[in-house]
Formats: sequence, structure tokens, C-alpha cells
Amino acid sequence: MVEEQTQLAGPERNYMEGQQADEEQGNPENNSLHRPLLKRNLTLSSSPLALVGAKVSHIESLDYEINENDLFKQDWRSRSRVQVLQYIFLKWLLAFLVGLLTGVIATLINLAIENIAGYKLLVVANYIEKESYLAGFIYFTTANFLLTLVASVLCVCFAPTAAGPGIPEIKAYLNGVDTPNMFGATTLMVKIVGSIGAVSAGLDLGKEGPLVHIGACLASLLGQGGPDNYRIKWRWLRYFNNDRDRRDLITCGSSSGVCAAFRSPVGGVLFALEEVATWWRSALLWRTFFSTAVVVVVLRLSMEYCKSGSCGLFGQGGLILFDVSDVSLRYHVVDIIPVALIGVIGGVLGSLYNYLLHKILRLYNLINEKGKLHKLLLSLTVSLFTSACLYGLPFLASCTPCDPSLQEACPTTGRVGNFKQFNCPSGHYNDLATLLHTTNDDAVRNIFSTNTPTEFQYFSLTIFFALYCILGLFTFGIAVPSGLFLPIILMGSAYGRMLGIAMGDYTKIDQGLYAVLGAASLMAGSMRMTVSLCVIFLELTNNLLLLPITMFVLLIAKTVGDCFNPSIYEIILDLKGLPFLDAHPEPWMRNITVGELADVKPPVVTLRGIEKVGRIVDVLRNTTHNGFPVVDDREVPVGRQAIGERELHGLVLRAHLVLLLKKKWFLQERRKTEEWEVREKFTSIDLAERSVKLEEVGVTKNEMEMYVDLHPLTNTTAYTVVETMSVAKALVLFREVGLRHMLVLPKFQGSGVSPVVGILTRQDLRAHNILSAFPHLEKAKGSKKGQ
Amino acid sequence: MVEEQTQLAGPERNYMEGQQADEEQGNPENNSLHRPLLKRNLTLSSSPLALVGAKVSHIESLDYEINENDLFKQDWRSRSRVQVLQYIFLKWLLAFLVGLLTGVIATLINLAIENIAGYKLLVVANYIEKESYLAGFIYFTTANFLLTLVASVLCVCFAPTAAGPGIPEIKAYLNGVDTPNMFGATTLMVKIVGSIGAVSAGLDLGKEGPLVHIGACLASLLGQGGPDNYRIKWRWLRYFNNDRDRRDLITCGSSSGVCAAFRSPVGGVLFALEEVATWWRSALLWRTFFSTAVVVVVLRLSMEYCKSGSCGLFGQGGLILFDVSDVSLRYHVVDIIPVALIGVIGGVLGSLYNYLLHKILRLYNLINEKGKLHKLLLSLTVSLFTSACLYGLPFLASCTPCDPSLQEACPTTGRVGNFKQFNCPSGHYNDLATLLHTTNDDAVRNIFSTNTPTEFQYFSLTIFFALYCILGLFTFGIAVPSGLFLPIILMGSAYGRMLGIAMGDYTKIDQGLYAVLGAASLMAGSMRMTVSLCVIFLELTNNLLLLPITMFVLLIAKTVGDCFNPSIYEIILDLKGLPFLDAHPEPWMRNITVGELADVKPPVVTLRGIEKVGRIVDVLRNTTHNGFPVVDDREVPVGRQAIGERELHGLVLRAHLVLLLKKKWFLQERRKTEEWEVREKFTSIDLAERSVKLEEVGVTKNEMEMYVDLHPLTNTTAYTVVETMSVAKALVLFREVGLRHMLVLPKFQGSGVSPVVGILTRQDLRAHNILSAFPHLEKAKGSKKGQ
Repeated sequence: MVEEQTQLAGPERNYMEGQQADEEQGNPENNSLHRPLLKRNLTLSSSPLALVGAKVSHIESLDYEINENDLFKQDWRSRSRVQVLQYIFLKWLLAFLVGLLTGVIATLINLAIENIAGYKLLVVANYIEKESYLAGFIYFTTANFLLTLVASVLCVCFAPTAAGPGIPEIKAYLNGVDTPNMFGATTLMVKIVGSIGAVSAGLDLGKEGPLVHIGACLASLLGQGGPDNYRIKWRWLRYFNNDRDRRDLITCGSSSGVCAAFRSPVGGVLFALEEVATWWRSALLWRTFFSTAVVVVVLRLSMEYCKSGSCGLFGQGGLILFDVSDVSLRYHVVDIIPVALIGVIGGVLGSLYNYLLHKILRLYNLINEKGKLHKLLLSLTVSLFTSACLYGLPFLASCTPCDPSLQEACPTTGRVGNFKQFNCPSGHYNDLATLLHTTNDDAVRNIFSTNTPTEFQYFSLTIFFALYCILGLFTFGIAVPSGLFLPIILMGSAYGRMLGIAMGDYTKIDQGLYAVLGAASLMAGSMRMTVSLCVIFLELTNNLLLLPITMFVLLIAKTVGDCFNPSIYEIILDLKGLPFLDAHPEPWMRNITVGELADVKPPVVTLRGIEKVGRIVDVLRNTTHNGFPVVDDREVPVGRQAIGERELHGLVLRAHLVLLLKKKWFLQERRKTEEWEVREKFTSIDLAERSVKLEEVGVTKNEMEMYVDLHPLTNTTAYTVVETMSVAKALVLFREVGLRHMLVLPKFQGSGVSPVVGILTRQDLRAHNILSAFPHLEKAKGSKKGQ
Repeated sequence: MVEEQTQLAGPERNYMEGQQADEEQGNPENNSLHRPLLKRNLTLSSSPLALVGAKVSHIESLDYEINENDLFKQDWRSRSRVQVLQYIFLKWLLAFLVGLLTGVIATLINLAIENIAGYKLLVVANYIEKESYLAGFIYFTTANFLLTLVASVLCVCFAPTAAGPGIPEIKAYLNGVDTPNMFGATTLMVKIVGSIGAVSAGLDLGKEGPLVHIGACLASLLGQGGPDNYRIKWRWLRYFNNDRDRRDLITCGSSSGVCAAFRSPVGGVLFALEEVATWWRSALLWRTFFSTAVVVVVLRLSMEYCKSGSCGLFGQGGLILFDVSDVSLRYHVVDIIPVALIGVIGGVLGSLYNYLLHKILRLYNLINEKGKLHKLLLSLTVSLFTSACLYGLPFLASCTPCDPSLQEACPTTGRVGNFKQFNCPSGHYNDLATLLHTTNDDAVRNIFSTNTPTEFQYFSLTIFFALYCILGLFTFGIAVPSGLFLPIILMGSAYGRMLGIAMGDYTKIDQGLYAVLGAASLMAGSMRMTVSLCVIFLELTNNLLLLPITMFVLLIAKTVGDCFNPSIYEIILDLKGLPFLDAHPEPWMRNITVGELADVKPPVVTLRGIEKVGRIVDVLRNTTHNGFPVVDDREVPVGRQAIGERELHGLVLRAHLVLLLKKKWFLQERRKTEEWEVREKFTSIDLAERSVKLEEVGVTKNEMEMYVDLHPLTNTTAYTVVETMSVAKALVLFREVGLRHMLVLPKFQGSGVSPVVGILTRQDLRAHNILSAFPHLEKAKGSKKGQ
């Protein structure tokens, strides 16, 4: 056996080929690596590459499973009560800090946007008052152009992952997919500044999605003690140097983000629960709730402080708020019809939006892939188009005389208000300018306004709706931080209000309420959430009497939308190539076993319990797998003779092997090590380190001939399935327990049979990949659906 | 081999012994059953008996795992698209019906209680007005006595499981523990009538817990098509004849119940999610939300209808409602101190309540176990004591002159109102009578009332608090349907309001709000829920500005409470002996493997793929296990000779074996059957049937010698673990995937080694049972905690 392995020197030969391989493969029958690599059957391998921010990244899976090797057990046993209390204290402290910082940053973002956009709009209003329309246009367009330029340059050059909402990537992270550079300090800074720039530039995007990403970034950075290069080496933090605790923190962070975006603590928790998180437990629910509570307190305090006028143009603004707690609501049976209608329209339009956005994002991906300049040009083109429309379209609307019975000032003085004078004579207002010559938040507030049944004309609303449909589709994919919530709310509220006008005297529901219901229906139709949206709208509107009617709309819109296509987040996840695992196996997965799946994969690469250094280096260089089964030899008595058999010891991670090589913990002879020997060399803190790269490790030729005892680093309790298990059930196990590798055992382990048939990873269990290897299942798929 | 098995005739010998056995045991080495039964090591076996409603019941686990045998696969393949649509349609129809019926029944219960208790109280008030205090007392006591008698007799004689709240049993059901007779038609009827009786009798209990149980009963009955003996044989319903779909329905039912109790649709969903359910997924969230939406609509419609006065004394009452949407709230920094104080007090008192209730319930169990008469007497004693206190204590309070500036009538005319005259002269009211001479719901409404700072005196509140502390502890365990919510709300609101008075001018928070916060804090301190309680209180108070302050109180109270003891539901679950599996493994479970666990159990009983009828009968009679591994013989070539080896085929359920015997599907010779043969005899509908008993099956002596092919009925994809897996990880798998049996495979399957080392069930994985078999782990447990 030893001779066979010495042949394996010179490993660089197949290096590149190994890089392109799927996550696990190998050869249990003979120990030569080269042959299987050459005859590799690629049917089931799908490349672990994802398109994130239009940049192809190599993605890895996360280790949510507890790696129960000897070192872990040792560490576990030695943990004192004080250390456990430290851990618990720190868990809560971090949850508090996540809430606090998210709240503070959300306030700062709001403050910046309100002031930048506010002064910009005031200057433009002055130009228009002086009837210097062209100067106004140039000023408006230039300001927007520059702001977009800042946001876009930052995104393109420094942090491509900061573009877009970030929610799909967070969703994937919590599912176990680690998109690189998603939660770094650079991403965070670019996201904050970029979001301020993009929103101030008047683009059709919101700060809600970015805030969720900011919350998650903060959580990740806090958990690891700072940016990658300047980490605090606080000893307490070592407990958080694992994927499980980081997952919990990021869940807290994303709920805090939603909470900060909508001032909705319960809605934030539910959003994380319903849309973002894959695993959930009661303890986390509580901790998340604590974080959002902190966010709300921070927001309240800062708004209280800003009321005194010390925040420039901030005032009360910056947070969408549609307070209808004073509006009295009554339900009549006749109201069901328009409300149901809104729901149906929301479902249809929402799925249509998903469909069209999918097409446009594919087109944009083609453009973005061409290079940084193309990305920049695309963003700037959209900015110019947006500015032109926002500035020019209000001229199409006719002026409306002010209703003297209104209490509000008309035309509006100052920046915020419902009745912009624009180009109209005094005593008149331009209703389209009210919606377009303002920040998006104010536009929402204006279109949501109650007791103003005659304010908006049908024609203006139609233009507004058409404009935001176009902008909503073409703005989302550009290289700036953008959210999906606000564009959808703007579109939805427009058709809601239009429907309200169309209904006329049929119902007594306020037009502002129609706008709210329209926004809710389009969100449900596109994002397919129910409970969390319901609570968010509840907390936005501050009127519990709205609850039943909102529920009704959301249920209808989601049902209708589900008939056509999946939710927008699922579409984006798919488009980005992130291997997200769904909760439910496809029905046809019952007709295929994990054994069949393992068969079409290249044979698995196993390591011996006590392995030669040379072979480990070889295996690491020639494969890209992140886990290798460790197999032990043992003598089994059969009758009177003893047969050499191999039995499975466990699974060892690539990161640990690299660490082992780096620490040069080699043995001269083939022997088992004692526990104290290992403990001298490794701590469980070392094991959590993942940043060491194979290229950094130098192994001399002499060392290549030495041995390594893998037993102490091997996870002896890896989850296993027997090869006859159906893929459907294996998938349930994989996803529910949160695995990275799943070992497939043979049904019968006789002599000569390998103790491991294969390793399955996330990629192998994805429906798409299985179908491409087993096309006959496609037919079965076509004929039925559901459960 | 055949000879060995014929010895097994005469199986009655060990029958009783088998009955007392744990769920799985047996003997893989030799096929004789008798020896292992005699030398059984009882260290790891814990009896699968639970004390439910103070009656010892034999409990079973539920099959949440999909039983993938040949028949299931066949059925699965043959399901047409239409059938899948039928299934989906029915799923939603049932969710609708659950909501509808829960809403209707909740209305009826409220209607009955308000009218019965209302007329009772009116008559008593008349007696008091005429100063015939003794006659009033006799009337009051007799009425309460009779109402309690009705509730208690029903519970004791017809449905012992209807006593208590039912929430712990529902929680256990959703965790996979099937408590017998929990969801039957009798239980439902007794629960409805008993709840009306008990609440009308003025006992210190609510209808909230029972409503949750009623919702769950309705869901279960609807899912199975009616009561056990009169089921509708609708073909569509066959899809719901499995534990998984029933679980989903019961989740819907329990949320509907909470929603009906508090008119809180989102709170209902969250309650089910946070407290009741073990497994959860997005699709279920949505369906549950639909059910609660239906409940709210039904409640609204019925209240609308009753406003016209056609519901007797019902009026607006019957649903706790503390609408403070009109109260303006401001936070000051100083308010944090009293609010934090409420939280701390709530946590301390809540855990104290849990502790004392535990003691008293143990005492009550001793009494209740003595027989039906003792149960009845206990209930009636509590009723008499309650009546005496409620009637007599108000005489201790002094009369307060009415404040003429109040808008409300003083003293109150009619039944509902804040200022009961009782024994006072005209123009005065008795504040304690306001709280005690009324229904519990009205008492809550009165103590929650806002803008009434001088209404209640400190002395009266102290009496009220002391009384309800005593009643709250001694009422819960009696044999009537009772909830925990209301007693806790009453206690909590009392000390909250007392604190409010004590604070005096320190803060400007309304006393009614103090009462609400007190109630919330005690609930969090005892039940340890956060998000769902927060939303329930939000929906009760209808004021979103209360949200941050409520969150604050709940978080503090739960944190403080968690320092002392587990939540009240966990205590009750433990007391009832229900084998609930927690989400998190204990830390010491990492130090023990499933192999060690399987070793201390009696050897596993395996069946052959083609087995003799006689042996099956024997095994079924001699064991109480519900699942048996099926092992096949196979020839394995070792060198030049072939060795007979045994390999695992899968797991067959007891219910299916009994069915097989009942259908007499026997073979003359030892052979494999064809698929069509099986299909002729069985459908997957048959397989779902669990009600056939072994005693009903008659097998002749001739038939005993025949054979049965178990392959088509065997679940070939049972979840397995290797014996080296730690118990902690096995528990995660067991609980996350929702298993009933977990097969333990040997690490190495050589010749002569059994292919199955053991079967683990829920009972084997419970911390308590493991600790009793491995006492040395206890020390490890003592030294650390947490994670």
C-alpha cells in the first residue's frame, strides 16, 4: 500500500482539472488519483460558481454541523461554567450591539438622504419658481448624475457584492451557502455610502433592502471582532468563530435591518423568520426580538432628538409612515369586491413583474459581465433617464386649483407637503410634481395620504404608474445598492389609488387606504410573503382595524401569484447561481436513491487514518473537495483466517488538513498519537481558522515521506445514509440538520466492499443537477406536481 | 431455522411481560424470543405511560416520517394530477373549515357564558339590593356549585382528557407523542360544555386554553372525516389519513383557538409557532394565517350581529379587550424604572407561581388518582371556596363615593360596568365588588380600565391579588376544562395596578396600562413566551405605541424567570409524563454514543424478509414494539467459499403486520411476491388504518405454518445512524426530521455481525432515561450547562 502511494508525487499535473471539479469525488477501489480524474463523469457535477454582483465567485458551503472530533470533545469537556456564562453574556451583548449599530446607521442614512435630496429639490424648486426651467433641469440632472456616479463607482470598483439588495445572498447564507465578500467591512461601507448616493439621486430604489444587508454585515463583523485585517483578539470572541453562531447573529442582523427600514420590530422578526431564515428555533426568536426592540428604541430617540430641528431637513421624514390610526374604518359586505380585485391585480401584476424583471436581469447580466465601464455606463444611463422623466413629466399634468377647505397649506411651502406648486400659478398645484419632485419616501407618504379624494387626477396617476413600472424594471439590476420594497410599494400604491378613483362612490374606503392595499397586494404578488408583510403593514399604518382587510388582500395576491411563478427572491437566487436548498423535496426524488446519485459521481477520495504526508498534499492539490472520508484498516476473522477489511472512521475537512500541513505535525513512523500530543499542538481555536491556503504551505521532500495521524481531527460522527435511501428523504435530512457533507454507506459491507459509497453535497441534491444527470425523471416531474 | 421457529407456539406465556416492555427490544443472535425477554435489562427502558387527566394512558409515538414501502411508491406513482389538486383543494378547505367552526364555537361559548353568568349575577345583585345577603349567598353558591358539578361530572365520567388546558398535550402531539383520546368527539363536546360550565361558575379559570384544545379537536375530527364511529367515507379524505397532514391541521386548529380566545390573528399564528409547534415551515405559516383570518371574520360578524341586542346579555362582552388606542402615550426616561420593576416582579412571581403550581399539581395528582369521587369532591370544594370568597370579600371593602366628573354611570346600572353598588348606599360604589361580582372577562376589563386613577383602593387590590393568587394555584388542577391565561392575567394585572398606585406621581403612565404591563410580565414570567405574547397584547390593546414598552417588560420578565425554572408548559408536560423531545441536546449527550445506548437495551427483534406466520404472531404477542427491522439473507463470496450473510432490508410497522395477518395474505411456500399480487390485496388506504387490534385477528394452526413476504410492506428508507454517532447528534436528527424509530447500524458489518445493532425511539433519547441508565453522566451534567 505504501508503494502505491509514493507514486503519487508530482501532483501539479492535474491541478487545474481538479479546480474545475465538483466538490467531492475520488476513488475507493485503487488509491491512484489520476485515473478517476481523467475519466471523470461530469453528469452530476455542477460547478460551485455563483454570479454575485455580476462577478463570478467560487462559493463554499458552511459548516453548520458540529464537527465532533477529539479536539472538539476535549475542548467541550474543559469548558468551565464561567466560560459558558461568558458565551451567553456575549451572545446577548452582540445582539444588543447589532440592534444599536443598525439603528444608528439607519438614522444616519436617513439623515443624509433627507438632507442631500432635500437641498437638491429645494434648489430645483427655486429655479422653477423663477421659471428657469432649463437651468433647473441641468442642475437636477447633474446632481443626480453625480450622486449615481459616486454610488456606482464605489460599487463597481470596491465592492461588487454591495450592489443590489443583498437579501437573496443573506437568505442563501442562512441556508448554508457562503457567498464570498458578502459581509466584509468594505461591503458595509460601500453599501452605506452607495445607498445614500443612490437614494438621494432619485433613482427608483429604496434603502430597505440595503438596510437588511447592512444589519447582516454589522452582525457578521461584530461576531468576528472587526474587519478581516484588523480583528480584535478578544478571547471571549473565540466562541463565535464558527458558522453556527455567525448564522444566528446574521439572522439578528437582518431582522434589525427590516425593523430599521420600516420601524417594525415584530415585522422585522417575522420577515427574517418567513423569508430569510432556513433554520429557526425559539431561543433565536427571542434574541432577534431583543435586537429589533433595541433598533426601535434607537430610532425613536433619534427622531425625538431631530424633532427639535437640529437635523436639517430630516424632521419627521425618512421613514415611510402611513399613520391612519385616526381614520375610522367600517367594513361592508360590498367592500369585499374591490378589495378582492386589488388582491387579484396584485397577484397578476406581481408575477408579471417577476417575469419581466427576470428577463431584464438576464440582459443586464450580459451587459455587466462585459466589464466595469459597461456597468458604470448602464447605471448612469438609467440615472439620466430617471432624471429626465422625473423633471419633465410633471409638465404634462394640468394645474389643479387648491381646495380652500383643506387645512394643509396649498400650494406647499417648504420641501415636504402634498401640494407642490411647480409650474402652476399661485393657488394651484401640480399633482404629478407632488409625486415626482420629491424623495421616494415622501412620494409614498403623499400617495398614501388620506382624506384627499380629489387631490390626484386619474391622468397623473396613470403617468406615475407607467413611469414607475418602467423604472422599477430597469433600475433594479444596476450596480448600486438597491432595495425591492420601495419600487414595488410605489407601483402598487399607484394602481391601488387609481382603482380607488375608478370605484368612485361604490365603496367608502378611503383612497389612501386603496393605495396601501395596492402596495401590499403587489408586494405579496411579487415577494410572496404573508404574515410578515401583514405585520409590517400593520406597524406602518398603526391601525389594527386594517388587519383583516390586509390579510384578505395578501392571501389573494399570494395565491394568484403562486399560480404563475416563484417569488422574486427565488428568481434572483436562481439567477445568481446560488445553490439554495428548498425545504421540500420534489415528488420525483422519491424514485431515485442516493446510491444511484453517488454512482454517477466520480468515485470518492478517501484517506487512511494514518496517512502519508505526500498523499495528503497530493489529494489536496488534485481535488477541490472540502471533506474526505477517513478509512481505517482492520483485521476481521472470517472462519479461521483473518481478512483485511476497511472501516469508516469519519470525515476530515480540507481546512483541517491544510492546518495540519501548516503546523507540520508529522510523525516519523506509522503510529497512533496520544491525546496530549495533539492538545500540545492544536487548540479548537485553531480549528475554527479557515483562512489558511494550501499555496502558503511548504512541505519538503523529506516531510512528504512522513506520516500524519488524522484520527484526532476526524469528525467521527458525520451523518450517514444507506445507499438505498431515497433522495427525497436524504434531502430532508440534509436540509433539516444543516449538513455540508453526507456520507453514503453501502447497504452491505462485506469484504472488499468500500465502507463509503460516496459523499453527497448541497450541489448533488439540487433538483436541477439531478435532472441533468437523470433526464428520465423529468418526465415524471412533468406529469405531477405539488404535495 | 424452521424448526427453531415452530418451538415458538404458545405465545401467551410472556404476553403480560411483553406489555410492560419498552417500545423496542429483541434478539438478533438467535431467533428465540423467550430468553431475551427474561434476561431483559431494564436500565434504559422507561414505561411509555403518561398521566393525562390523572388517568394513566398508554401512549404511542406518531409516524411523521414518510413510510416509503413498495405500496406507497406504487400509490405515489399512480397519483394523477387531478388527485394532487384534490389534495391541495382539500387542504385549504379544511383550513377554512377549522377557522369557521372554531370561530362559531367560540362565539357560542362566549354567548352561553355571558348569558348564564350574567343572569346569575343579576339575580344576586337583586338579592343584595334587597339586602337579603344570605339568600344571595345561597343562590350564588348553589348556582356555582351546580355549574361546577356539570362541568366536573362530564370531565370525570366521559372525557378525563378534557380537563385542564390541553395545550401541553397539543404541544406533545405536534412533537410526535400521541396521547390517547385527546382529539375525539367526546372530548370536544365535554370541553365545550365543561368550559361553559366552569367559566360561568365563576371559577378562576379562562376559556382561552380550552379554546385552543377545541380548535385542535375540530381540526383532528375534520381531518379524519368525523367522530371515530361515524366517519364520512369521502374518498378525498384518504389523503389526510396520515400523521403528517393531521399534524398540520392541528397546528391550524390551535392557532385558530388562540385567535378566537384573544381576537388576535397574528398572535394566534405566532403562539402556535413559538410555543406549540415543533416543526414549522413557510407553507404552514401561510395556511395557519388563513385559518386565523377566517376566525377573525367570523368573530367580527357575530359581534356585529350581537350589537343589535339579539344575543341577550352578550353585547360586546366575552372577549377580553383593552382598547387603549385613544390613550396618548409618551415615553420619558424616568418611566424605564417602574417598567423594569414590573418586568422583574413578573419574572420572580411567574417562576414562583410555576414552582408552587408544580407542588400543588403533584398533590392534586395524588388525590385525583384515588378515583372519580375524589376528583369530583376536589372540584366542588374549590367551587365552594371560590364562591364564598367572591361573595364575602367585597363586604370587607369600604364604599367609595362616586366621582361626579365621570362620564360613566356610577353606580353601574345593569350588569356590565366599572362601579358596582353592591352593599353601598346610593351614590357610592364598592370597588372590590366591581372586580369580584362579575365574570372574569369583565374583571379584566375593569382592572384594565384607563383614566380611572382613583377607582380602586390599595386595600381592595391587595385582597383581590391575594385571593387570585390562592385561587390561581388551587383551581388549575381540578377536573374541569381550564386555561392558564386568565388566572395569570388577573394576578398580573392586580399587582401591576397596585404598583401603579404605589408609584403615585412619579410617572404619568396610566394605571390601566400598569395593569396591562403587569399581566404581560406575569405571563412572560410563567409561560416564557415573548414575540407571541407581545403581539397578542398588541392586538388586545390596539395601540402600537405600547409595543416598545411591552417588549421591554416581556424581555425582562422572561430573562428573570428563566433564571429559576422552566416554563409552566414544560413543567406540566414533565408532570404528565409525556416524552417531549427538546430541540437542543444536553451538553453531556456528546459524551455518549448511540451504540452504548443500544447496548443497554434488550437486543432488537428482527424479522426475515419472508417470514413464517407463526413467528410474526409470536413476535407481535410477545413484544409491544411498534417497528421491527426486516433482515434478508444473502450469499456473499469470501475467497472461494460463499458465506451466508444477513443484510438490512428496512423497517416494518406493527400496524402493517397486524393488517397483514387480518387480511390473511399468506403464501404456501417461501417465495417473493410480485407487485401485482400485493396491489390486489392492499391499497395504501389500508396501510393508513391503525385501528385493527391483534386480538381481533384469528390465525389457524395451519396458517401458522405458512409464510408471508414482508418486502412490499417494509419501509426501505428508514433513517439510520452508525453506532459511533453521539447521542447529541442522533437526537438532532431524530427531532428535526421527526422520526419514530431510528435504526442503529454497526460500524463494521462483517460476517456474523448483525446488520442492526438496535432501534432507538423517543423514550431512549430522553435525557432523564439516559441518565438513569448512565448515572456517571449526571456529574458531567452538574458541572456545566447552557449552549
